[in-house]
Amino acid sequence: MGETNSQTLQAVKQYLKDHFPDDLELIREFLRQPSISYTGEGINETAQLLVTMIQELGGDAQVVATEGHPIVFGELDQGAPHTVLVYGMYDVMPADEPDWSVDPWAAEIKELPEQGPSIVARGAVNTKGPMAGFFRAVAGYQAAAGKLPVNLLFALEGEEEMGSRHFVPFVKGHLRELKQADTVLFPFFSENEAGIPYMTLGTKGILYFELECQGGQWGGPTRRGVHGSYNAWVANPIWRLVQAMATFVDVDETIRIDGFFDDVAELPAEELDVIREQVNAGRMDETVFMESDHILQFKGNLRGTALWQRLFSQPQLNIDGIVGGYTGEGTKTLLPHKALAKMDVRMVPRMDPERVEACIRRHLDAHGFGDITMRVYNKYPWSKLSLQEQGVQTMLKTYKDMGKEPVVWPLNPGSAPYYVFEHILGVPYVTGGLGHGHRQHSNDEYCTVAGLLNFELSMAQWLHDYAVAAAEGGAGSGR
Amino acid sequence: MGETNSQTLQAVKQYLKDHFPDDLELIREFLRQPSISYTGEGINETAQLLVTMIQELGGDAQVVATEGHPIVFGELDQGAPHTVLVYGMYDVMPADEPDWSVDPWAAEIKELPEQGPSIVARGAVNTKGPMAGFFRAVAGYQAAAGKLPVNLLFALEGEEEMGSRHFVPFVKGHLRELKQADTVLFPFFSENEAGIPYMTLGTKGILYFELECQGGQWGGPTRRGVHGSYNAWVANPIWRLVQAMATFVDVDETIRIDGFFDDVAELPAEELDVIREQVNAGRMDETVFMESDHILQFKGNLRGTALWQRLFSQPQLNIDGIVGGYTGEGTKTLLPHKALAKMDVRMVPRMDPERVEACIRRHLDAHGFGDITMRVYNKYPWSKLSLQEQGVQTMLKTYKDMGKEPVVWPLNPGSAPYYVFEHILGVPYVTGGLGHGHRQHSNDEYCTVAGLLNFELSMAQWLHDYAVAAAEGGAGSGR
Repeated sequence: MGETNSQTLQAVKQYLKDHFPDDLELIREFLRQPSISYTGEGINETAQLLVTMIQELGGDAQVVATEGHPIVFGELDQGAPHTVLVYGMYDVMPADEPDWSVDPWAAEIKELPEQGPSIVARGAVNTKGPMAGFFRAVAGYQAAAGKLPVNLLFALEGEEEMGSRHFVPFVKGHLRELKQADTVLFPFFSENEAGIPYMTLGTKGILYFELECQGGQWGGPTRRGVHGSYNAWVANPIWRLVQAMATFVDVDETIRIDGFFDDVAELPAEELDVIREQVNAGRMDETVFMESDHILQFKGNLRGTALWQRLFSQPQLNIDGIVGGYTGEGTKTLLPHKALAKMDVRMVPRMDPERVEACIRRHLDAHGFGDITMRVYNKYPWSKLSLQEQGVQTMLKTYKDMGKEPVVWPLNPGSAPYYVFEHILGVPYVTGGLGHGHRQHSNDEYCTVAGLLNFELSMAQWLHDYAVAAAEGGAGSGR
Repeated sequence: MGETNSQTLQAVKQYLKDHFPDDLELIREFLRQPSISYTGEGINETAQLLVTMIQELGGDAQVVATEGHPIVFGELDQGAPHTVLVYGMYDVMPADEPDWSVDPWAAEIKELPEQGPSIVARGAVNTKGPMAGFFRAVAGYQAAAGKLPVNLLFALEGEEEMGSRHFVPFVKGHLRELKQADTVLFPFFSENEAGIPYMTLGTKGILYFELECQGGQWGGPTRRGVHGSYNAWVANPIWRLVQAMATFVDVDETIRIDGFFDDVAELPAEELDVIREQVNAGRMDETVFMESDHILQFKGNLRGTALWQRLFSQPQLNIDGIVGGYTGEGTKTLLPHKALAKMDVRMVPRMDPERVEACIRRHLDAHGFGDITMRVYNKYPWSKLSLQEQGVQTMLKTYKDMGKEPVVWPLNPGSAPYYVFEHILGVPYVTGGLGHGHRQHSNDEYCTVAGLLNFELSMAQWLHDYAVAAAEGGAGSGR
């Protein structure tokens, strides 16, 4: 069986290579369709487009309405013994950064100095680029081999950038169908700037909230800003918010909130060993990030193993944005009536989102800032994945077979709603694929053209190899 | 002469009353012409309009170019023995506040609950409303009496809201002509919500600056924002700015900057007496401001004499605005590369703007924030005026003659470039006129219609009485 399979895979890969120019145009076309999470622009159009794309593969699909943006639920029955649930997010961040060098919705191909020809577009990497690439890989597989070696289910949500607010009810409402899956696959470009693919074993959780300070009994203008000269008399809500926030951390950003670290688990010794080994082998190298993102110094001046250990084992309390008063150009004197900060906590295993939220509220109250409003937007827990899962092992094998030595990350430092798969659905998951993109949530988000082809090839190989491993009895064994 | 003069003044006032409906329309027309200081929108058109308005009075006028917005310089020779220099500002703030109930450029008349029919428009009070009203008062005076009892000079600048950046060079370049003036008059609505006119004896100075924190050697992203999850590794410029700003003040906004108060002069005992007397008589009443501006509590819970003493004797360190990172709706996780605050210091006598600026810079450096940029926009000193100046005495007499008991403010808590008159030109000045307007620098800025007519009448009376006093040898006596 190995020989035949191997020939099939070779044929599929050749087909994908031969037809890549056409695929590239289709992927660019998909990126030109806006699907902005917060504003809702293009969300419905994109959901409909995905239904059509699943149907074109021969599957059934429908748009499932939620209280927010719809979820595309699809099924591609290939008469195979095993089933993969493809998770994806078709929504993207706004492209409101002022410094885009091209139209973020034109999906132009630019020659980037370090990375070569790349699609520069909102969603190129996060994540409509890999999503569209996955569809092309499946279509190519079918064209070259007749059908896929596994059945697919699709659950493609449109609110990931807003915290996947309605994904849980969807999963709970479709448990029977979704539990048919042996594994969940989240297709994504996993190579960094240096071409090293990384495998994340889970993800941090998130608590995203706003703090708002408004004039009231404590002082400050209560309904509208007043002339700035009255600050001689009347307190300023921006000063108050600044003072409150300053109590959260030291100057070096060490978090000083009672109870915040209570549930933080140590990184398992074996994972720390993996980090050390990879750092020593030069395959976990922070200088890649320093160069790509123009960072001159890390917190606490850490480097190497200690730095990576921090990334995977420490929570953060970040300020995503702050605004209040007059922020236009030039000078306007104003005593504003409110100030607002947007903040996020990234939680590591065993932190409890509810407890963390309560700690922050208690801290504000205890420091005399009971008037400051805390408005929680997104809140979901971390998730942890075993290295032994069949999907993970297959992905690592795919990388190695394609000549890439992967790096294992004990945790994704960002957040994704993987807890839904782990805790609600009870099905293991894997994130991956070759390919490279960067600058998500920033201007000039991109993915490389060469990486896109490698991504398609790696998805074909993973589907192929996963089917083989499952047939050999491995599927789901890690559960 | 008194009798004739008195008859003349009565005739002028009757004329102004009879023709007020026409004046009102002309004033509204003037307010519909935008003249936004920072953007420059309508600035040149407004300057040209003012030249025409001076010419229509029979005067000569020209637009004097500066490196910024032009200054309108005019002369109205009435063959009189004494000359008044009319200072004015034809520029206004942007009307970008979201909560305007009407088009800020339509100069609509609205019935305000407390104040009755009022023009609601950007510039209604600050200061195109009084400026246009002054022109109507002069035109009416000429129509009824043949000519004014004084000559006028006009110096109308277009950059007051940006700190009068080019007014000093203009004055220095026209010293010979401007020094012909016996006094400077800045026409303005001086009544508060309760109809009490106030007379300010000078003004606080201003230091308006921006603080900017950007990623650099200390940490933080240096060129653009990166994904928020990297705050586990990389420090946040908003945190740093917040921490730096928090060192400036205590929670109650007590300023903690070494040297900041070194030059602050005590309020003279006689001025404190005037305050106490006026507070006790109920003519200096902070509840008027509390109600109009929806303030529930003052700093330090002060009230009465102590509160007013604070307003006239204490500097402030205000945050006009703060911005950094993602400030749109909903959630976006971002580790931004910079954060910005706009701040102003209002300086009382004997504070030196240069020394204050140096204190703040030294404070930042001493606290380890040498990397934070301090960008000064506006900087000019306080000015102090004697109650004995002829122009001031005439204005107080005007108020009393028209049935209003004025309140004396030892200092304007806002800022105006009066130091130019006091220190550079060497001519005394007076600010005043009846009438009421409010909400400058905020939405729904207004002036009352009834107040506009009283303003015109008071300007006519002041011009008349000043000429009489000057003829009796009083003009310039206070110099």
